[in-house]
Amino acid sequence: MLIQLQSDINPAQKEAIIQKANALKYKITEVITQQGHYLVGTGKADFDVRAVGNLPGIKDLHIVSDDYKLVSRKWKVNPTVIDFGDGLRVKEGEFTIMAGPCSIENEAQVEKTINHLVEQGVRFMRGGVFKPRSSPYSFRGLGLEGLKMFYDMCRANGIKVVTEVMQVSQIAPMEPYTDVFQVGARNTQNFNLLDELGKVDKPVLLKRGISGTIDELLYSAEYIFSGGNEKLMLCERGIRTYETASRNTLDLNAIPILKEKTHLPVIVDPSHGMGIREYVEPMALAAIMAGADGIIYETHEKPEEAASDGAQTLSFTESERMIKKMQKTFALRKELGN
Amino acid sequence: MLIQLQSDINPAQKEAIIQKANALKYKITEVITQQGHYLVGTGKADFDVRAVGNLPGIKDLHIVSDDYKLVSRKWKVNPTVIDFGDGLRVKEGEFTIMAGPCSIENEAQVEKTINHLVEQGVRFMRGGVFKPRSSPYSFRGLGLEGLKMFYDMCRANGIKVVTEVMQVSQIAPMEPYTDVFQVGARNTQNFNLLDELGKVDKPVLLKRGISGTIDELLYSAEYIFSGGNEKLMLCERGIRTYETASRNTLDLNAIPILKEKTHLPVIVDPSHGMGIREYVEPMALAAIMAGADGIIYETHEKPEEAASDGAQTLSFTESERMIKKMQKTFALRKELGN
Amino acid sequence: MLIQLQSDINPAQKEAIIQKANALKYKITEVITQQGHYLVGTGKADFDVRAVGNLPGIKDLHIVSDDYKLVSRKWKVNPTVIDFGDGLRVKEGEFTIMAGPCSIENEAQVEKTINHLVEQGVRFMRGGVFKPRSSPYSFRGLGLEGLKMFYDMCRANGIKVVTEVMQVSQIAPMEPYTDVFQVGARNTQNFNLLDELGKVDKPVLLKRGISGTIDELLYSAEYIFSGGNEKLMLCERGIRTYETASRNTLDLNAIPILKEKTHLPVIVDPSHGMGIREYVEPMALAAIMAGADGIIYETHEKPEEAASDGAQTLSFTESERMIKKMQKTFALRKELGN
Amino acid sequence: MLIQLQSDINPAQKEAIIQKANALKYKITEVITQQGHYLVGTGKADFDVRAVGNLPGIKDLHIVSDDYKLVSRKWKVNPTVIDFGDGLRVKEGEFTIMAGPCSIENEAQVEKTINHLVEQGVRFMRGGVFKPRSSPYSFRGLGLEGLKMFYDMCRANGIKVVTEVMQVSQIAPMEPYTDVFQVGARNTQNFNLLDELGKVDKPVLLKRGISGTIDELLYSAEYIFSGGNEKLMLCERGIRTYETASRNTLDLNAIPILKEKTHLPVIVDPSHGMGIREYVEPMALAAIMAGADGIIYETHEKPEEAASDGAQTLSFTESERMIKKMQKTFALRKELGN
Repeated sequence: MLIQLQSDINPAQKEAIIQKANALKYKITEVITQQGHYLVGTGKADFDVRAVGNLPGIKDLHIVSDDYKLVSRKWKVNPTVIDFGDGLRVKEGEFTIMAGPCSIENEAQVEKTINHLVEQGVRFMRGGVFKPRSSPYSFRGLGLEGLKMFYDMCRANGIKVVTEVMQVSQIAPMEPYTDVFQVGARNTQNFNLLDELGKVDKPVLLKRGISGTIDELLYSAEYIFSGGNEKLMLCERGIRTYETASRNTLDLNAIPILKEKTHLPVIVDPSHGMGIREYVEPMALAAIMAGADGIIYETHEKPEEAASDGAQTLSFTESERMIKKMQKTFALRKELGN
Repeated sequence: MLIQLQSDINPAQKEAIIQKANALKYKITEVITQQGHYLVGTGKADFDVRAVGNLPGIKDLHIVSDDYKLVSRKWKVNPTVIDFGDGLRVKEGEFTIMAGPCSIENEAQVEKTINHLVEQGVRFMRGGVFKPRSSPYSFRGLGLEGLKMFYDMCRANGIKVVTEVMQVSQIAPMEPYTDVFQVGARNTQNFNLLDELGKVDKPVLLKRGISGTIDELLYSAEYIFSGGNEKLMLCERGIRTYETASRNTLDLNAIPILKEKTHLPVIVDPSHGMGIREYVEPMALAAIMAGADGIIYETHEKPEEAASDGAQTLSFTESERMIKKMQKTFALRKELGN
Repeated sequence: MLIQLQSDINPAQKEAIIQKANALKYKITEVITQQGHYLVGTGKADFDVRAVGNLPGIKDLHIVSDDYKLVSRKWKVNPTVIDFGDGLRVKEGEFTIMAGPCSIENEAQVEKTINHLVEQGVRFMRGGVFKPRSSPYSFRGLGLEGLKMFYDMCRANGIKVVTEVMQVSQIAPMEPYTDVFQVGARNTQNFNLLDELGKVDKPVLLKRGISGTIDELLYSAEYIFSGGNEKLMLCERGIRTYETASRNTLDLNAIPILKEKTHLPVIVDPSHGMGIREYVEPMALAAIMAGADGIIYETHEKPEEAASDGAQTLSFTESERMIKKMQKTFALRKELGN
Repeated sequence: MLIQLQSDINPAQKEAIIQKANALKYKITEVITQQGHYLVGTGKADFDVRAVGNLPGIKDLHIVSDDYKLVSRKWKVNPTVIDFGDGLRVKEGEFTIMAGPCSIENEAQVEKTINHLVEQGVRFMRGGVFKPRSSPYSFRGLGLEGLKMFYDMCRANGIKVVTEVMQVSQIAPMEPYTDVFQVGARNTQNFNLLDELGKVDKPVLLKRGISGTIDELLYSAEYIFSGGNEKLMLCERGIRTYETASRNTLDLNAIPILKEKTHLPVIVDPSHGMGIREYVEPMALAAIMAGADGIIYETHEKPEEAASDGAQTLSFTESERMIKKMQKTFALRKELGN
């Protein structure tokens, strides 16, 4: 069961609800987020909804049969809106573009990318300063100093920063310089990191694990939400299969499935999804028709000179062309009512 | 190497070419199709193209580095056109719809489906009379008599029949009543069946194996082409992965990859691709934006009463709505130049 | 339900049983094999076992909840014994070795292999004359003439021939020269082939599909058994996964699972299982400890000169060493009671 | 290149080596572990080994073509020995057993388990106090207080504690109470955690990722080793495949592959490997014959009452029986020289 509490509930009322739920053999977790106050009950017994739902202090009570509760669409029909101010929102029904290099390299690179984004009306710039690398001998990013430079330049241009956080100890120092914390595919089940991101009042972009199931992605989102942060976006970025023709298999099936299961926005990453530049555009357009709420992709002034992931990165010319096509494709989807 | 021969080549000229190629340690396979006469050379040595290419009787000589040769786009830049007469063609740049039930059940069902297709302007009807079933105790289809009924009714309405062939001995009896032989996902590497379909002058729709790689699909197509039949269409129909949220994982990545590797048209089956009715439409539209040349899907007057695959089958109302959306989506793709 | 009939049942008695089962909404398939006479009932209703089981002509009635029936261990506790005469049997509790080249190449090769096998006391020789190949330009085997030579030489030395059948039309001509029909991993769900092998009175070695589930393997075995042939062996030969360090992933987990689910013997192929010579021996020994009833592997006088699969083929020296180790390992397993 | 330095090397000598390597376009990482002092060079150029190798201060120089260097068997033919004192060692050629419950629950449970282990001569007890759980509402372990209790009781009985660490901030508080830090399958690519474990002088048991490749496991081990800790064990624990008959697919193929690629000991976890109690024993024995240096498994006085993973946990009776069989199986493997 999922109980939404009234904002003026008093401690005695809350206690009464918990005792009632416990009596029904439901274990209660209290959740306070930026936007709501909830009691999440996990248990199996059938019960009379009115027996609990009519208690004072309750705004609404929902039966949610999924094992994840707060992120389920079963209780929250209206999709989540993440509001960045200035009219900038990520939500179902609008189309979000996030673009930028794999790694932040230097000021000149950031400046050129910002110019490109501003010209195209893109409001989110992605870029890593802490890079997860398979080999310990690879470039691991510019670190916090790089982030500060990245953030200051973005801020001066009205651009929001999307950047990966890899560990708990990075959260606090990164927070002043980060608009969206990205959780990478290797950390989707780094539960401590998820717990801590639940305590932050900044949006989180949670990527699906390299071979994570859709349910596991939703459970991981539940960690963050139940920790107190409901500003959540999910991201499909390619899964591992037997096929070797591309680096990953971008799983567009996940889009309609997620849109049915959860109220959270779904962003798609066609750059990591296949790992091959030529296929980024068709897969981005396909993702939009499948129902994606946004696309995140890699672009660089000179992809062949990028510090990492050049093979899957678009030039600015390619990026510009794709943006126009994405907007037309999204416009068609709206027209079709999909 | 792939050598296109002139139509008026004489045996002595051909023999001279073969000897020259053998001298370069190339093994030669002679291929005569409905549309061309080829010598396919497999070997590894570098050689001077002019040393062979200038021999009399040769129309063109191509170096094809792929292990499949005839189906490779490296020698044939113009995409394959499969012409059914009456202006009906399957090819890159046009959009083909094939629809119908999983299994042919009876006359009434076929009649209703034809009415639906005619109304919507759909020219291909799919429907199985020989059904591959995991369990020997399941319904295995109406067989040849069913096919005759199916074909006669379609023919009377200008509809082409697309139906699955499961074994060599079925080819000859089926041929008079079949417009497109479909090879199912369990037979993609049934090499004897492929060999025999190479001898037939009827188009073949070759499905990707349940866990077949893209290269394996192209090799299997090479079997049919090198057997003498170049009227070939490839079909992505979902692969097997670890994800259990859907029956299969429709691999839209395969579309741009195939379009780059081969000149053959690529059809996508979103019904088997996920196995869930609600997701057929978004995945069909996504497939079109990814570059599909056609969509094949399951529709039935009453999906819940279908003899097989009801859970992934559209009602006629759903089918009609999807057809309109697919046409608009394809129109946008053309407008975008993709 | 699975009904074993008495051998002297009369038609009226049989009809009465079928009518009774139909009245319970069970669909009945009659199966007559070399060893028994069965009625297989598929349906869902609960019923009083005595209401059917006491009818005249019934030897035994079993409730089998699995979707496969005849191959299930639920009704047949005693494992299947396949008797080749001369004291040669494949069965649980004995250990069977099948060895030989991937492809039969010529008389000299067969002679040398037979000498090696006779020396080591191995009674089954494997070797393909019809080879399934991804590419149509690869060597496809010596065909029927090769099989006759192979068979005659084996017979003269008391060796049984295990060889792959790829299509229905090969069964009849192969039958006089084949002791065990092998069904390859690409044909595990070639249902017509399975149907026809059900009509043959020769043992069948059925390989698991390249990405076949264990249940699919059992269903495919059910096809052959329900067709009339219960001389069946199953073979694990490696599945397709994301791992690229070896050609396939030999799935030893399948052994204890299959031993619990079915009464059929389970043979393991460590040559195709990984595709790398060095790992054949450790995986063969592991397979034995996991419960395999036999091992089939590739050996060749000069692996590096083999017409196919040389990289996974053992030399005779390696083969001899492995045979000794396998026998000691199997002896330990018996001693442990596993 | 991998350079082993002499223990008495002086700074000027080291600097000269680094400069020489840099001149060859090799990037140098200095690594100081408990047992050695290394310079790891990553680069691609061919060079004259003597030109570097003869410099003063160098003990040995190795060309290691693998992308991982320190964990490669190419430079270190002698397998790693992890010495716990009291004659307790984990290494190739000896057989290690680690057993215990999934979760540490209470003193009584630990006491009973210790009694069982002491009786059987097992010297390592596994047990989690920090539990990674898919759902945030599941039991997450007793935490540090539980670890102290667990450690004190083990220590009093000469048993070593193997327990999972989930995040960087747990390392320091856990260290006094932990003999082997286990890194779980969801953290195999938690690179910050690996970095920090490189700074600890305690053995680490690194599990393969849920769908991690063998190379990724070795890269992750390289993180820890290059961080300064060479007391490393690798653990195969089942991978994710399409097969649903068991929770995971225990990949025994990984054993001979890892034994060839690395000098680190390889432990196998048949409990998580399949997730089904009945199959733990056959798979453990199979793993030993495939070359495993040790087995880690779950056992509990009353598996059906275990706080987690009961379905894959052995009773003490089953555990005792398996220990005896494992020892006999290992003895046979030694006798066979494998």
